[in-house]
Amino acid sequence: MIIPTIADVMSAHERIAPYIHRTPILTSSYIDGQVGASLFFKCENLQKAGAFKARGAANAVFSLDAVSAAKGVATHSSGNHGTCLSYAAGKRGIACTVVMPRTAPQAKKDAVRGYGGTVVECEPSVTSREATFAEVVAQSGAEFVHPYNDPRVIAGQATCSKELLNEVAGLDAVIAPIGGGGMISGTCLTLSSLAKQVQVYAAEPDRADDACRSFRAGRIIADDAPQTIADGLRVPLKDLTWHFVKTNVTNVLTVSELEIVDAMKLIWKRMKLVVEPSSAVALAAVLKNSNVFVGKRIGVILTGGNVDLDNLPWR
Amino acid sequence: MIIPTIADVMSAHERIAPYIHRTPILTSSYIDGQVGASLFFKCENLQKAGAFKARGAANAVFSLDAVSAAKGVATHSSGNHGTCLSYAAGKRGIACTVVMPRTAPQAKKDAVRGYGGTVVECEPSVTSREATFAEVVAQSGAEFVHPYNDPRVIAGQATCSKELLNEVAGLDAVIAPIGGGGMISGTCLTLSSLAKQVQVYAAEPDRADDACRSFRAGRIIADDAPQTIADGLRVPLKDLTWHFVKTNVTNVLTVSELEIVDAMKLIWKRMKLVVEPSSAVALAAVLKNSNVFVGKRIGVILTGGNVDLDNLPWR
Repeated sequence: MIIPTIADVMSAHERIAPYIHRTPILTSSYIDGQVGASLFFKCENLQKAGAFKARGAANAVFSLDAVSAAKGVATHSSGNHGTCLSYAAGKRGIACTVVMPRTAPQAKKDAVRGYGGTVVECEPSVTSREATFAEVVAQSGAEFVHPYNDPRVIAGQATCSKELLNEVAGLDAVIAPIGGGGMISGTCLTLSSLAKQVQVYAAEPDRADDACRSFRAGRIIADDAPQTIADGLRVPLKDLTWHFVKTNVTNVLTVSELEIVDAMKLIWKRMKLVVEPSSAVALAAVLKNSNVFVGKRIGVILTGGNVDLDNLPWR
Repeated sequence: MIIPTIADVMSAHERIAPYIHRTPILTSSYIDGQVGASLFFKCENLQKAGAFKARGAANAVFSLDAVSAAKGVATHSSGNHGTCLSYAAGKRGIACTVVMPRTAPQAKKDAVRGYGGTVVECEPSVTSREATFAEVVAQSGAEFVHPYNDPRVIAGQATCSKELLNEVAGLDAVIAPIGGGGMISGTCLTLSSLAKQVQVYAAEPDRADDACRSFRAGRIIADDAPQTIADGLRVPLKDLTWHFVKTNVTNVLTVSELEIVDAMKLIWKRMKLVVEPSSAVALAAVLKNSNVFVGKRIGVILTGGNVDLDNLPWR
């Protein structure tokens, strides 16, 4: 296990700067009034390819030496990581293969292809995915870029809270959603080095509460096929992300499906931002636990905006 | 007719700065690729109260001397101006009355009340509106702030393209939607003083093409009860806004209802921004007339984001 350091974050930020947006940080007086706190929303929904994962993917892709890069990159993901890896590989002009269940939404396959990547379909099972992925790597020699359990990816995600720290003074805490834990790990990495006094909260759906249960138990406990509208948060912690969660996270807060949808709609309505359900989990947790956050200055990471506009979770 | 000057814009910007967001300017590689140009979207959908009209309303409200302010402000508007005037009056702590047809959407009435304003309902006719409004003013002595045909309002709206000029170098043109012409007049005012080389394009629905027909005819021609999904653009030009349109606008471009909805969905999908239909009219016109804009640097003003999330114009 290679644990990334703050030096890796600094070099990541220089490396990826030409390929990512420095996303705006927005505020809402109305939502501040609801919570009784000052919230600073870091808008990674406005990031390249629509999600913070462009940061980690770009860092991994542009870290490769020329020989490795020539063989391309590969991953398995039916979510934002696949799209963002395809985006980053396209920027470097190298091949990207994404293994995805044939049942994945057409829009996700189109997004990977839209940035020039190749989709290889597998059956919707772990066995098929692993076999298919092994074959892809054996044939191409492509570099595997894991969606989150990868030091290059974590160092990339860590640049997000570095920007937040640079622009917002006096933060008391930062909260982000937790799925596999890449964004939370990056947040822990940056804050534990540059601003130790800032607490890190992780937020997750109570229907996919493996991080919360792991945090309480002191060891990784994986969910068994969790179902939640926050589809980016269904994946389990791995050793590297668990390291950061157990070392640096103040608490893991969970929210219901209804609370997620309500927070999502609130962001759309009052902040005029398209965010995906996973993005809204952090605000949902702040609204639910306003006693924890009242009077404080809180960074809230809006993680992504890739959502099916024809199929919204309200009428 | 009092024509506002660039000095009015400068003092407006200082006056309103504490009450407005300096909205971000965002870009989309994907949309740039579609047009073959570089587009800089000024995100007034992220403005206070969800629309650029907070600028003009705040300028009018904070321009009042203490004696006038004590009597409050009043307007007739079932759109963003009513909401924004209520917002600005609330910030100054003075009364705001908005006359609105009883048939106006509940959400619009709620928005005015949400910022502390009073809604007075009239029948949905011009006669009733004028009689009701005259009564409100007679009783209160409130200062009438017209939605657009007011030099204070135009000077306020003009601060938007002042910010755009400050942040984006080498613009060739700015395009904004045109209804009554407040935003376009403000844009003309700023650009004709600070950056004469930058062309101004106005965009409007072909189902409410009074500005286009006026521009061609050289005199104001009003529509008769136009119906368009771009509900902010149904109002006619007035003398003051017509002055700017005839003097400074390069061309008025019109688009169909379908083109508006397509552009709106494109902004939601690719830029992750909630914009109302009126906001999308400018991009629709750029997409339709890419031959005019190809290779250029274009400022596109996204005017507002107040839309009914339960009733979107796509399935």
